[in-house]
Amino acid sequence: MQLDLAITGGTLVTAADMFAADLGIKDGRIALLGAPGTLGGAARSIDAQGMLVMPGGVDSHCHIEQLEPDGGVNEEGFESASRACLAGGTTSVITFSNQFKGHRIRDTLEEYKARARRGAMVDYSFHQIVTDPTEAVLAEDIPALIGEGIRSLKVFLTYDTSHVDDAQYLRVLAAARRGGALVTVHCENYEAIRWRSAALLADGRTAPKYHAWSRPRVVEREATHRAIALAELVDQPIQIFHVSCSEVAEEIARAQARGVKVWAETCPQYLTLTAADMDRPGFEGAKFMCSPSPRDPADRDALWQDLRRGTLDIISSDHAGSSYDGDRGKAAHGRDAPFTQVPNGVPGLAFRLPLVFSEGVSSGRIDPCRFVQLVSANPAKLFGLYPRKGTIAPGADADLVLWDPSRRVTLTQALAQHAIDYTPYEGRVVTGWPVMTLRAGQVVMERDVVTAEPGSGRFLARAPYPMIAPSGRLADGFDASAFPV
Amino acid sequence: MQLDLAITGGTLVTAADMFAADLGIKDGRIALLGAPGTLGGAARSIDAQGMLVMPGGVDSHCHIEQLEPDGGVNEEGFESASRACLAGGTTSVITFSNQFKGHRIRDTLEEYKARARRGAMVDYSFHQIVTDPTEAVLAEDIPALIGEGIRSLKVFLTYDTSHVDDAQYLRVLAAARRGGALVTVHCENYEAIRWRSAALLADGRTAPKYHAWSRPRVVEREATHRAIALAELVDQPIQIFHVSCSEVAEEIARAQARGVKVWAETCPQYLTLTAADMDRPGFEGAKFMCSPSPRDPADRDALWQDLRRGTLDIISSDHAGSSYDGDRGKAAHGRDAPFTQVPNGVPGLAFRLPLVFSEGVSSGRIDPCRFVQLVSANPAKLFGLYPRKGTIAPGADADLVLWDPSRRVTLTQALAQHAIDYTPYEGRVVTGWPVMTLRAGQVVMERDVVTAEPGSGRFLARAPYPMIAPSGRLADGFDASAFPV
Amino acid sequence: MQLDLAITGGTLVTAADMFAADLGIKDGRIALLGAPGTLGGAARSIDAQGMLVMPGGVDSHCHIEQLEPDGGVNEEGFESASRACLAGGTTSVITFSNQFKGHRIRDTLEEYKARARRGAMVDYSFHQIVTDPTEAVLAEDIPALIGEGIRSLKVFLTYDTSHVDDAQYLRVLAAARRGGALVTVHCENYEAIRWRSAALLADGRTAPKYHAWSRPRVVEREATHRAIALAELVDQPIQIFHVSCSEVAEEIARAQARGVKVWAETCPQYLTLTAADMDRPGFEGAKFMCSPSPRDPADRDALWQDLRRGTLDIISSDHAGSSYDGDRGKAAHGRDAPFTQVPNGVPGLAFRLPLVFSEGVSSGRIDPCRFVQLVSANPAKLFGLYPRKGTIAPGADADLVLWDPSRRVTLTQALAQHAIDYTPYEGRVVTGWPVMTLRAGQVVMERDVVTAEPGSGRFLARAPYPMIAPSGRLADGFDASAFPV
Amino acid sequence: MQLDLAITGGTLVTAADMFAADLGIKDGRIALLGAPGTLGGAARSIDAQGMLVMPGGVDSHCHIEQLEPDGGVNEEGFESASRACLAGGTTSVITFSNQFKGHRIRDTLEEYKARARRGAMVDYSFHQIVTDPTEAVLAEDIPALIGEGIRSLKVFLTYDTSHVDDAQYLRVLAAARRGGALVTVHCENYEAIRWRSAALLADGRTAPKYHAWSRPRVVEREATHRAIALAELVDQPIQIFHVSCSEVAEEIARAQARGVKVWAETCPQYLTLTAADMDRPGFEGAKFMCSPSPRDPADRDALWQDLRRGTLDIISSDHAGSSYDGDRGKAAHGRDAPFTQVPNGVPGLAFRLPLVFSEGVSSGRIDPCRFVQLVSANPAKLFGLYPRKGTIAPGADADLVLWDPSRRVTLTQALAQHAIDYTPYEGRVVTGWPVMTLRAGQVVMERDVVTAEPGSGRFLARAPYPMIAPSGRLADGFDASAFPV
Repeated sequence: MQLDLAITGGTLVTAADMFAADLGIKDGRIALLGAPGTLGGAARSIDAQGMLVMPGGVDSHCHIEQLEPDGGVNEEGFESASRACLAGGTTSVITFSNQFKGHRIRDTLEEYKARARRGAMVDYSFHQIVTDPTEAVLAEDIPALIGEGIRSLKVFLTYDTSHVDDAQYLRVLAAARRGGALVTVHCENYEAIRWRSAALLADGRTAPKYHAWSRPRVVEREATHRAIALAELVDQPIQIFHVSCSEVAEEIARAQARGVKVWAETCPQYLTLTAADMDRPGFEGAKFMCSPSPRDPADRDALWQDLRRGTLDIISSDHAGSSYDGDRGKAAHGRDAPFTQVPNGVPGLAFRLPLVFSEGVSSGRIDPCRFVQLVSANPAKLFGLYPRKGTIAPGADADLVLWDPSRRVTLTQALAQHAIDYTPYEGRVVTGWPVMTLRAGQVVMERDVVTAEPGSGRFLARAPYPMIAPSGRLADGFDASAFPV
Repeated sequence: MQLDLAITGGTLVTAADMFAADLGIKDGRIALLGAPGTLGGAARSIDAQGMLVMPGGVDSHCHIEQLEPDGGVNEEGFESASRACLAGGTTSVITFSNQFKGHRIRDTLEEYKARARRGAMVDYSFHQIVTDPTEAVLAEDIPALIGEGIRSLKVFLTYDTSHVDDAQYLRVLAAARRGGALVTVHCENYEAIRWRSAALLADGRTAPKYHAWSRPRVVEREATHRAIALAELVDQPIQIFHVSCSEVAEEIARAQARGVKVWAETCPQYLTLTAADMDRPGFEGAKFMCSPSPRDPADRDALWQDLRRGTLDIISSDHAGSSYDGDRGKAAHGRDAPFTQVPNGVPGLAFRLPLVFSEGVSSGRIDPCRFVQLVSANPAKLFGLYPRKGTIAPGADADLVLWDPSRRVTLTQALAQHAIDYTPYEGRVVTGWPVMTLRAGQVVMERDVVTAEPGSGRFLARAPYPMIAPSGRLADGFDASAFPV
Repeated sequence: MQLDLAITGGTLVTAADMFAADLGIKDGRIALLGAPGTLGGAARSIDAQGMLVMPGGVDSHCHIEQLEPDGGVNEEGFESASRACLAGGTTSVITFSNQFKGHRIRDTLEEYKARARRGAMVDYSFHQIVTDPTEAVLAEDIPALIGEGIRSLKVFLTYDTSHVDDAQYLRVLAAARRGGALVTVHCENYEAIRWRSAALLADGRTAPKYHAWSRPRVVEREATHRAIALAELVDQPIQIFHVSCSEVAEEIARAQARGVKVWAETCPQYLTLTAADMDRPGFEGAKFMCSPSPRDPADRDALWQDLRRGTLDIISSDHAGSSYDGDRGKAAHGRDAPFTQVPNGVPGLAFRLPLVFSEGVSSGRIDPCRFVQLVSANPAKLFGLYPRKGTIAPGADADLVLWDPSRRVTLTQALAQHAIDYTPYEGRVVTGWPVMTLRAGQVVMERDVVTAEPGSGRFLARAPYPMIAPSGRLADGFDASAFPV
Repeated sequence: MQLDLAITGGTLVTAADMFAADLGIKDGRIALLGAPGTLGGAARSIDAQGMLVMPGGVDSHCHIEQLEPDGGVNEEGFESASRACLAGGTTSVITFSNQFKGHRIRDTLEEYKARARRGAMVDYSFHQIVTDPTEAVLAEDIPALIGEGIRSLKVFLTYDTSHVDDAQYLRVLAAARRGGALVTVHCENYEAIRWRSAALLADGRTAPKYHAWSRPRVVEREATHRAIALAELVDQPIQIFHVSCSEVAEEIARAQARGVKVWAETCPQYLTLTAADMDRPGFEGAKFMCSPSPRDPADRDALWQDLRRGTLDIISSDHAGSSYDGDRGKAAHGRDAPFTQVPNGVPGLAFRLPLVFSEGVSSGRIDPCRFVQLVSANPAKLFGLYPRKGTIAPGADADLVLWDPSRRVTLTQALAQHAIDYTPYEGRVVTGWPVMTLRAGQVVMERDVVTAEPGSGRFLARAPYPMIAPSGRLADGFDASAFPV
């Protein structure tokens, strides 16, 4: 077979394996894996000596070009977001299609897809946010969504414009169960945050740091327990988004131990930032505001234990937010805006893999296989992108990142390559860096320069409940007769 | 490259991945993995259509041709054991070298190696049982062992001829830590069993079923907690052998959650048998006696949850025991021998994979990747055989099993192919069966016929603490500078 | 001192002590405790030889003459309820004042007090149910209530006519904290029950037994965790009503272990009935319907362990319900009414103490002191009636029950002496029985004949947070300078 | 009745109650409790205005005049120990009779009793230490002991001269079960401490602070889990001595939750000292050495939570040790003696109640009833001294302490009144102080002056398993027919 491209001399890493091998690509897919030196005659060859060759990152939680009820659109568009992803070794994303309350899902989904088609330079899918699960939405829109391969729904248990109450959440769980979709949940108690926030504002406590005060751990723990309990009642698999601390992870671990089908993610911000960052001088703290809030140093460090013992399965970016000095966002509200008016979310598409590799692998907390699980294989498996994404195996898309495990890099806004005008990780030094990214067999980033074409990203129709699931917690009983053999 | 053998059309399964691919073998190793149809020109080809192609089983706990202090030798010799292994899809074993109290380790190790060299038809390594950790043993024998690649020690916390006390156990832990070996532990409280057994005999309770009465769960839980606590004190990684129930697994889960480096195995007997089996009519119950004892049906079923949530990492056979009607063993003591005189252990080399696949995968409890983890990849990784064993990747030994996932087979003593004269699983029906086994690229079993040559098995010198560990719980901090790139 | 009455020869039991002593009463209060034979010269004397002399029961959860939003009134009036109480050894109750949605608390409270003044033959206080915590209610009504000694509020997290949402619950917690009142909570998830019930009815499952199906354990566990979490956020002491099973108690135990100020009660129905009782032939099952639902036999038995280890502090009756053949209630809806239309609640005023004594003390599960704690001392302490109620000590009200610990009695509706036309305990045999009840030094029940006068009960204004609290879990830091010395 | 003495105007406190009352004493026992002003005509009267009147302390763990295998005797004799007890409000002790290995129990018991008869000024009983449970000891000595009312045995799981192994411990448990005695256990792993100590000494780490290093939490946790597990196996009630931290308490809480009959104590040193005290300049740290070791400040504070939630039932002194400058003890070994040669134990008889009251009640952590439970009622109940000791009720011994809850006192060696030449609490300020102690109706301490006569203390023969037990965890099923009525 005439290979299009061979990557030679590297150490391949998958969710389970780490071995020296050459890798051959044909028609955008991985065609061959061979012992070093066995793959001759490729049209082109890349020398990966000294590099780890890993599956491209899958970011299963990021907000891109999201439409807002007020007619606005998130400033991080598909093109800029894709650039940041590729710069950081991520080749696939699952972003969001947002339902506006009072509207049907179908009213906005096509707009999202059109925007992605125009701008995306990574492959993409959507989680459908459900904010208004009317009968029509449940009976028509959700089955239609699932039919076209959008097999995950998201609900918010907080936020004025998007939160659902228990009755609505139950209906979404039931609809997902009927259709075969996963439900993902943002877990914070809506009323508790409102109550705390009002009390803080009434007390004149408006600075960014009070964001953390408005939503302490218990607010997240309560909603997490409730989200799990109702899913348990319906017997519907769920994923908990952005777990911020072990107190919350413990609820998830308890549920997993009793057999509940629950998975969970955390994000780099909870592994690297703390609430103290929101107390930086002036309004700088606003750059670190996200929900749930970063916690204390002890919480930050303890989360690694939850990653090591398998309670948390995924590390996504939850990339979101807005520019500090831009048209909208933190600046628009003035440097003395109360914390309740500052948009939530921190940007993180590009630095997800470097931060996790540096703090995880280079610091000796996890091995490279666990790294691949967390940032690529597990999100791919949980959300039905596997085996096309998330691994290095014949037949898989040739989405790869070549990683220099010993390169030390100082993170800067320039390296982040996103549209938002700052990075919360400015000046941080990491060990381990992506030196080349391939998508569908094409080199799309080399030495921090992204060369992909807008619109080259492809929509990923996704399979139903995974056959192969993270941590062996199958969403459904495994049907031996359904082997893809 | 001219391949020696190609296996085509199958679905390859590793600890993380499951994908349709062809596989090429050269010089006994896996040379190439290619998309279906891409591997041309092999000297020979095997059609694996409809089959799962999995790494050969690694049985990290089995007693083979073990010498006894009384001069006897376990009737299951390397040749018969190898036949049973290959019949059941297992291609590597870690068996035991036994130290006799009052003797040096070096007194017997060479004898074991010689016996293995003569009879083995699977690759093999040894755990060194330490029963008498004198200064000389600790200072000379153990470093020497480790130097030749025998990197795991075993201690018994029970049994008259082999148990060590806390002082001895601590010395073994410390010696292992100095040398870089793993310590494996049989956890039951010696004195508690003696005390209970004496009370039962004094009460006239001698039948096989009283074996279970003599060692209830608490006896195993106590020793497990103690084994972990002392390892915690020394900061030495350990593996707990043959966990029989969730009450014990819970101690392990708690330790893992606080970061203790502890792994654990269970065995098919705890997933399929119960204490009631020892209450069969006549002396039949003796066929099911092993230690720890099988428990109740609820315990048996709950263990699967511990496997699913990742507390238990390995399923080994703990193959042991002796013939029901043979020269020695259960029969030698007469049909009315008290339970304390009946040798412990049940045979299980051949049926380990079929039982776990049938109860695990075919019953929908775990996916095929988790199966490969439990019976092959995790034991290989934990005990330093990986990446040579335990996976399908270029460079790995071509030890493979072709598995028909839908074949239903009734288990019989004839199929077990071991020397012991019975199987505790007689008459049980399983779904999923090994139809061919390859070792080092050679077909050594086909349609239940084993064709390997005695002495063809190779000694496996093992690496120190694993770089890639089961469940991401590294035995040591991962050193990024030590990447094998 | 000239005593009005002496009770001699008995064994006195308090929450901590059990000792042979004579007891002297003067002016309705306990005046003297003396070693046997030391109290001479009382106007009257009662021989308590062979009897336990215990403080009269305090029932801190019972529904009496409660007004309904539809203008009706609960058929169990103060007079009949008092008769049942005194028959069973209970001398004080805390019943409910119910707020109707859309109304102020002050609109109905006076009506309740007037009704109690007319009919009560036991001393009484009220928990104020809050269903509509408007600004006026929070700012005016609740402080006023507390000012007159009604120092506990109740919220329902379920039921159409009474449930509060999280925002309302938080406001009630905060108002209670400001005023110094305890908050009591009925914990079941409103929407989950509605969702399940609708599904059951849609499926044609209408029989009484489906009541249990409509509200499984997880529904109660979820609400309990939420009730605790929000109280944790506000730092407001709460009591959880009617815990039905250990799965729920475990949430409470975890909260207590981390220092949350949470107490909990269970009821005789959860210690003696099971869901199977609702599956009796015909419509009989309706007699056992209460919320939360009785669970399985294993749950029923395990609750005793939660009582023994101190997680649950109180056993109340939650007396409620309506007549099986009466004007309203279960009968009014016809024998084929769906379970959703059958009024909830079972009657239990009279048999609370006999059932708990028989299953607890006579069965060897708890000692008599723990019995007194659960049915008298702890409710008195938690709700501010102590030291006037709940103990035998100089100065305390002479509310006493003389108990024959060995008398065996078959429970019947006649012995229950309440207005509701059945008892769910018909035919059950208990060991231990109240043979005489005194209230304020007067004999008000003797040999099952109640002789008190309607209107003789007194309103009990209650103290703020307890100085002496059940299980040593103070509602507030103890202020040594505030000793009542 | 002509009272010998009346105590008027005080606030009486028992394990459950706190009420204003006068108290009358006759013939050394409490005869009457009356409402204030009701007790006329006593021969003598004491004004307790402003005072708490509490049952005298019961110290169930203290080493007094203990004989050593080397022929020595502990320098804290019965007379000096009694003085310290009475100075601090303690009126009863349970000290130890020590068996020497190789000897019978009966060889030394009479000697202990004789010494106590001569010197004691408090009432006393013994725990019998069993170090050598031979057949004769088990079959003859232990039944004889129990027959004369010494109903508790003690085993050490550590210490060269006294530790028992698992086989011996099991035999003691079984003998206790046969005879109806409680077993108390010092829980630390003998071999682990030896191993750690040897390593520390080999490393030149000999200073007092290394005592803490030699026995970290895990060493105590292991032995505690083991002590419980073996008691669970035998179904024999036990008490764990001197729990030093929550990590250990958690094992006890788990056992209690599953119904194991286990109680536990802690001591003032674990509630007030930390390991840092052993790092004081020079050899001063030796003054704070006891086993288990005091832990970190966070451990010290967390223990209060275990006391509040009821996991720990008793606070004893574990008074022990030896003089800093005396004939033997710390001084004898020189100021540079390695930590392994410094005798363990700190003196604490006098300051037990003041320290616990000050840190517990005055600091708002527990209420006065819980204080009485911990230092008097619970030890009396658990060890069969109740109802003679541990409460204020007619018939009980008139052992009382009058307590000024607001008096602030600086602790000094002079106030400690013991024979050992220092107190580890020198200079600490407490709030709350005993101003008068009565034993058997006699004033034996007033304004820090002890006036009792040596030899006035009485031997307390103890009852079998308690009818009324701390925390409602009965040692045995409660037999209703056995009521002492």
